[in-house]
Amino acid sequence: MTMARDIAGLPMLLVVDAVRAALEEDLGRAGDITSLATIPANAVASAAIVARKPGVLAGLALAECAFRELDPEVRFRPRLSDGDALQSGAAAAEIEGNARAILSAERVALNFLCHLSGIATATAGLVAKVAHTRARICDTRKTLPGLRAFEKYAVRCGGGVNHRFGLDDAILIKDNHIAAVGGVAEAVRRARAGAGHLVKIEVEVDTVAQLAEAMTAAPDVVLLDNMPLAELRAAVQLVGGRAVTEASGGITPESIAAVAEAGVDMISSGWLTHSAPALDLGLDFAIAGAR
Amino acid sequence: MTMARDIAGLPMLLVVDAVRAALEEDLGRAGDITSLATIPANAVASAAIVARKPGVLAGLALAECAFRELDPEVRFRPRLSDGDALQSGAAAAEIEGNARAILSAERVALNFLCHLSGIATATAGLVAKVAHTRARICDTRKTLPGLRAFEKYAVRCGGGVNHRFGLDDAILIKDNHIAAVGGVAEAVRRARAGAGHLVKIEVEVDTVAQLAEAMTAAPDVVLLDNMPLAELRAAVQLVGGRAVTEASGGITPESIAAVAEAGVDMISSGWLTHSAPALDLGLDFAIAGAR
Amino acid sequence: MTMARDIAGLPMLLVVDAVRAALEEDLGRAGDITSLATIPANAVASAAIVARKPGVLAGLALAECAFRELDPEVRFRPRLSDGDALQSGAAAAEIEGNARAILSAERVALNFLCHLSGIATATAGLVAKVAHTRARICDTRKTLPGLRAFEKYAVRCGGGVNHRFGLDDAILIKDNHIAAVGGVAEAVRRARAGAGHLVKIEVEVDTVAQLAEAMTAAPDVVLLDNMPLAELRAAVQLVGGRAVTEASGGITPESIAAVAEAGVDMISSGWLTHSAPALDLGLDFAIAGAR
Amino acid sequence: MTMARDIAGLPMLLVVDAVRAALEEDLGRAGDITSLATIPANAVASAAIVARKPGVLAGLALAECAFRELDPEVRFRPRLSDGDALQSGAAAAEIEGNARAILSAERVALNFLCHLSGIATATAGLVAKVAHTRARICDTRKTLPGLRAFEKYAVRCGGGVNHRFGLDDAILIKDNHIAAVGGVAEAVRRARAGAGHLVKIEVEVDTVAQLAEAMTAAPDVVLLDNMPLAELRAAVQLVGGRAVTEASGGITPESIAAVAEAGVDMISSGWLTHSAPALDLGLDFAIAGAR
Amino acid sequence: MTMARDIAGLPMLLVVDAVRAALEEDLGRAGDITSLATIPANAVASAAIVARKPGVLAGLALAECAFRELDPEVRFRPRLSDGDALQSGAAAAEIEGNARAILSAERVALNFLCHLSGIATATAGLVAKVAHTRARICDTRKTLPGLRAFEKYAVRCGGGVNHRFGLDDAILIKDNHIAAVGGVAEAVRRARAGAGHLVKIEVEVDTVAQLAEAMTAAPDVVLLDNMPLAELRAAVQLVGGRAVTEASGGITPESIAAVAEAGVDMISSGWLTHSAPALDLGLDFAIAGAR
Amino acid sequence: MTMARDIAGLPMLLVVDAVRAALEEDLGRAGDITSLATIPANAVASAAIVARKPGVLAGLALAECAFRELDPEVRFRPRLSDGDALQSGAAAAEIEGNARAILSAERVALNFLCHLSGIATATAGLVAKVAHTRARICDTRKTLPGLRAFEKYAVRCGGGVNHRFGLDDAILIKDNHIAAVGGVAEAVRRARAGAGHLVKIEVEVDTVAQLAEAMTAAPDVVLLDNMPLAELRAAVQLVGGRAVTEASGGITPESIAAVAEAGVDMISSGWLTHSAPALDLGLDFAIAGAR
Repeated sequence: MTMARDIAGLPMLLVVDAVRAALEEDLGRAGDITSLATIPANAVASAAIVARKPGVLAGLALAECAFRELDPEVRFRPRLSDGDALQSGAAAAEIEGNARAILSAERVALNFLCHLSGIATATAGLVAKVAHTRARICDTRKTLPGLRAFEKYAVRCGGGVNHRFGLDDAILIKDNHIAAVGGVAEAVRRARAGAGHLVKIEVEVDTVAQLAEAMTAAPDVVLLDNMPLAELRAAVQLVGGRAVTEASGGITPESIAAVAEAGVDMISSGWLTHSAPALDLGLDFAIAGAR
Repeated sequence: MTMARDIAGLPMLLVVDAVRAALEEDLGRAGDITSLATIPANAVASAAIVARKPGVLAGLALAECAFRELDPEVRFRPRLSDGDALQSGAAAAEIEGNARAILSAERVALNFLCHLSGIATATAGLVAKVAHTRARICDTRKTLPGLRAFEKYAVRCGGGVNHRFGLDDAILIKDNHIAAVGGVAEAVRRARAGAGHLVKIEVEVDTVAQLAEAMTAAPDVVLLDNMPLAELRAAVQLVGGRAVTEASGGITPESIAAVAEAGVDMISSGWLTHSAPALDLGLDFAIAGAR
Repeated sequence: MTMARDIAGLPMLLVVDAVRAALEEDLGRAGDITSLATIPANAVASAAIVARKPGVLAGLALAECAFRELDPEVRFRPRLSDGDALQSGAAAAEIEGNARAILSAERVALNFLCHLSGIATATAGLVAKVAHTRARICDTRKTLPGLRAFEKYAVRCGGGVNHRFGLDDAILIKDNHIAAVGGVAEAVRRARAGAGHLVKIEVEVDTVAQLAEAMTAAPDVVLLDNMPLAELRAAVQLVGGRAVTEASGGITPESIAAVAEAGVDMISSGWLTHSAPALDLGLDFAIAGAR
Repeated sequence: MTMARDIAGLPMLLVVDAVRAALEEDLGRAGDITSLATIPANAVASAAIVARKPGVLAGLALAECAFRELDPEVRFRPRLSDGDALQSGAAAAEIEGNARAILSAERVALNFLCHLSGIATATAGLVAKVAHTRARICDTRKTLPGLRAFEKYAVRCGGGVNHRFGLDDAILIKDNHIAAVGGVAEAVRRARAGAGHLVKIEVEVDTVAQLAEAMTAAPDVVLLDNMPLAELRAAVQLVGGRAVTEASGGITPESIAAVAEAGVDMISSGWLTHSAPALDLGLDFAIAGAR
Repeated sequence: MTMARDIAGLPMLLVVDAVRAALEEDLGRAGDITSLATIPANAVASAAIVARKPGVLAGLALAECAFRELDPEVRFRPRLSDGDALQSGAAAAEIEGNARAILSAERVALNFLCHLSGIATATAGLVAKVAHTRARICDTRKTLPGLRAFEKYAVRCGGGVNHRFGLDDAILIKDNHIAAVGGVAEAVRRARAGAGHLVKIEVEVDTVAQLAEAMTAAPDVVLLDNMPLAELRAAVQLVGGRAVTEASGGITPESIAAVAEAGVDMISSGWLTHSAPALDLGLDFAIAGAR
Repeated sequence: MTMARDIAGLPMLLVVDAVRAALEEDLGRAGDITSLATIPANAVASAAIVARKPGVLAGLALAECAFRELDPEVRFRPRLSDGDALQSGAAAAEIEGNARAILSAERVALNFLCHLSGIATATAGLVAKVAHTRARICDTRKTLPGLRAFEKYAVRCGGGVNHRFGLDDAILIKDNHIAAVGGVAEAVRRARAGAGHLVKIEVEVDTVAQLAEAMTAAPDVVLLDNMPLAELRAAVQLVGGRAVTEASGGITPESIAAVAEAGVDMISSGWLTHSAPALDLGLDFAIAGAR
């Protein structure tokens, strides 16, 4: 409720709702029965959130919220900010408060933090590989249910850019839509007729020929799906700056630099959110007295 | 509401709640504006959920629920069951229904299915590596917030066993609890005094010496944390069947067989739920007429 | 759950949630104590939703949902569709079902229908006044809390177009943002740097001079706020098709045709959603037997 | 949570729930992306809620709650209270706090405030027209779904009285109930037999003859529906103080004084809540520094 | 969703919400692990809800809903209706459906049914004791949190009448309110000035003298609190039919007949809802095959 | 949010959710209209929660939360703690704060407190009767829907122990499960195969013969259901410490000592939670000024 730090683009109401739900999931109907049996009610502890591996930090506000929900008087001092690089052994934040509360909130705090920092770290890795080009890295809708706003925030922490947040905030015409309409240019035209003036229209194409037809309908963005590098280069040239170009499909850490060098504006990766491994962060903890 | 198939141990009420929340997250305030603009309202489609990579299936009921929420009349025919092995190219289920509804639900259905099948596949991989031993594979509380019940279900689909579901349904005494109490055996005794007679007590130890002390208090389960193989073998021998033995920490696909061969009953892995990569499944789709 | 009709762009999950909440608001803790005391439990009624004044229909699915929630066996037969013109005395739908359920749901059904049809009617009125021009009518975020998705749907039923749905799906730079940044063009540039490639950028300007500066940053849409007609015409000319033009501020039914004739693409009106009067629809009801 | 001011009869829990839902509706999944891109995180602003038109204020606590939810440290200083008359240009409240938070909450705060003040203003207008009589103005159940408690509060702010809040807290026997029972007096008797001793019973009649029959069953309130003035006067005389008299139907600002002069106790108007136009209030805003 | 029977005055939406919450409370995160391990997924069972003790039935719809939520295809055949007398050994309903579902829902169904039937039985007991008088039995707001609507429904099933449902639907002026105002008649007058015309006003008095003062303000109901029998008789005489009289305080099954014979209209009892013992009902169950 | 006292094993998030729901149930749509009409908005009161009968206190944090939700500035000073014995006339807590808020929260606070203290008092009564034996008293799943976590907490306050919290956190094999499997030992074996290593297995038996068979499968706990005393003694002897023994069925305050003297470890009682009468606590209240 009184958290001072800013979490850019992550509505605090969503943070509180998600953290409360996660705590209720973990505390169940009887709470942390281990800490209740072994830790005195008035014990005070000091703790630190420490990186066990290097990476990029994301989700500190969610961690803070977890501790604060169980101890409104907790002192949570960030040592780093979301988006910062973490060295192995570095402390992201220091915590002082009720010992039971800290232990009871630990897992929820770390579950958010390790997952989101994993995504930020993976994003930063791809961003670094294309830093010598104009390409930017973006995410997809291949997110874990219930966590999309947070995962997309983590992508931003890693230096990436967000694709649309849902089915409702941008139009993306895919092969199935094109097949239903009967043609790519006609599909774009129908989308434009149906969409509001503040909605962008992207269309997915598989070949340069299809791209050429699509461009007659002037889409805002073209998704170049699974194109070989030569075709990708031809596609970028054909577009000639009249639309944003986005490459997608089969992107690997090995192949991404070459894709970027083909000249596209954006490279989107579902892997960032559905498969990036967690970053290993832990809690160093010590009883510090009683109050 | 009228789904016929059984989903062992996954309360259907949780499934419906989670799927509805995921659909609301994806559909937002205006729904699937792309399909609305390009697919006729009365178009009917047939589709199939198809594996692009081999693995183990988990989460079919969540996928079905996603399609059914958007088209209560959908025909969803499973071709395989959760826990079955998937060959690359195999269909997990066939779907027939309103074309817009199928496209609008596709991403949510696949997001659940790919994530959970990824966990089941990873679990089955570890299970296979220890099949020649008595060891069983289990999960941890390192799950993604909001998804624990589903992720633990996926572990069961992969042949694994579940550790506790939350802080409230079993006691697990860790180093911090022991430090607060001042001794491992005393910690177990306090836990037993506080816990009900239907709650099991597990205690984490780092060394055989600590284990010996712990065993004087007769815990139900001992967690052998990060022990070298030789120490692990000594620990198993010391316990001598008087408690369940669980190995944890630094388990890798390479090292797991050796850990299992040390004779432990259980091996727990946080990686299964926090970092297993998604299994690649997709939707093959075709317009099949109108009604 | 089994409603057959299509409600374009209005996620059914939102409809059900809103209707249930409205019914709970009206039924309270004891239900419809008047009908319980006076209508036999097994009485069957036939009813019709009838327009008392002419207008444009919007919200039929919400009305149907209200009756269906209280009588899952109700027969609800639409005679018209959302977006259709209603003559005074015309029936929008016919209903047959449990008499108590119909009377208990009546007010909720009509409260949605009269409000949304009022918005659709108001929208259609403005659309008609600019039909001889290229201008389209759009809404704003001046909606009633909790009803935005439905009110924006009603605007579409009336022939209008939707502006953004929330603070998160498009950028609209207003005077306060410009003042904070120190200049309109710089504000647009910062917005572009921060926004994803699927987010459109609109900027509000008060004068042609400010517009000229804004255009150097190539916004997608320009909001021409409260401009006199001569200035509006100059603004449209200056833009010259390089951005969508939207007029706003002080639009009245009397003035709107002249604004449209100035050549703008869009005219936005908060009045449509915050002040359009309800359309008068009522329920004709008769007991038809018992079952 | 710590708002000091009293909001008579408006449970604060309802206020917080409604404001949070409205903020989530507006902030969506990514928050106020415009302010995030253009306003520094630490900028502080001072603002004022100012009336652009004269009217009666209602809903200040909802506005305060919106700002406070996004900035718990905000200073919100009311200059007027709900129910006070607003001159054009008058400030209802002054606000000082985080600049982003103020801009992000602005629309939600104003949407509540303009709608509720519109209702209070409309109510006060009718109240003034009947001030020379004994008649009081009351509302109906023709409210906007989800907003009933707030709209009825606004009617009280405007000097009106509330009719029942839902189907469950008073009995109102209408034509359809009478038809089902077969007679007005019998309907009242059945209602009395079914209702608790703390529930009032009102019956709607269309004619003096029907009223005479109804009075034999001693209702608490009679609703005189759509009666011509002469009949209304006769009805009031017939009742002779043995029940509260309420006139309803076809009330207009022009006709209301004559209706009141007929001697009724109450005049109810659905228009107050379903069609009263919003009162125009805006936010004057200026960056005031940083912290 | 498709339950056919009527539950007078108990909104079905409240039933479904309460039953789902109760099932989620009981099924937790892993469901009925005992039945999952021992009952085949396709086993079909027949069962009966049987009274182990005599009493009055209440809550059958909640029981049905519990079974239906876990098996939408269940056949639930009521043999008796709410309000009916139950003999020991009598079946209230017969059930046929999925064996696991019936066992998993059993406890929730019985928990509702035994509690509510306990209240109905207790109510009927008091009603019988005063059947020779004009007195009716009513409840209070001393209900268990979250269960008020259901408990008050059970009171009606037992032949009782409901007092107000909450703080908002009737005025009850107690000693603390009178002390704050400075006098009982003045308190009634203030209440009348503040309340709508559809709200009844009750005032609590301790003595006949206080009652005499209260009657000068013409309350609708007087609560005669803890009066000795002689004073109660005097009070009833003083009121003389000008208000409803309600006796309260220290009512026991032994004393209630004498209280009723003092001539009061109503006798209210908190014991009905806060302390009535559960009625013993159980589930007779047998596996009946497989499907 | 800032409540200082510890409530062992009762997650504060559950407390806040339950109290808010109870307040919304009682305050309804218009709030405490009696206090609003009679108590000045700025009146301050001092009050005390006082026992009218002796017993054991449970639920103080829920009471505090009720007052705090309606007046965040309230001063709530506990004089006793949960689990303490209450003398008749003793104050459990003193309260100082806004007079309206205290009166509006009174009923919710007392409804929780009287119910939970009733359970604690009943539990303590049984505990005292078996204090000379090794037996401990435990609860069942026969709890009131929505209140289980609180009721089980109250059992602990009274000196009892909790049985499982739901269907998911321990296995309890009953007669119907045994019948479906075909034998008690086989049922235990199937349960063990299906359950995780942190789940205890209890089996219900009716006779010593059945117990003997069950013991061959080494359950953790045996439930000795409705056994005569002689059989109970034989059962305890047969088990010989190899499992926890729990007696259940037909336990009365009169019979419980004899059951305990038969040597069982646990005695479970559904009566504690489904039928224990409320403990009588009230609120002493006085206006103390204004602020």
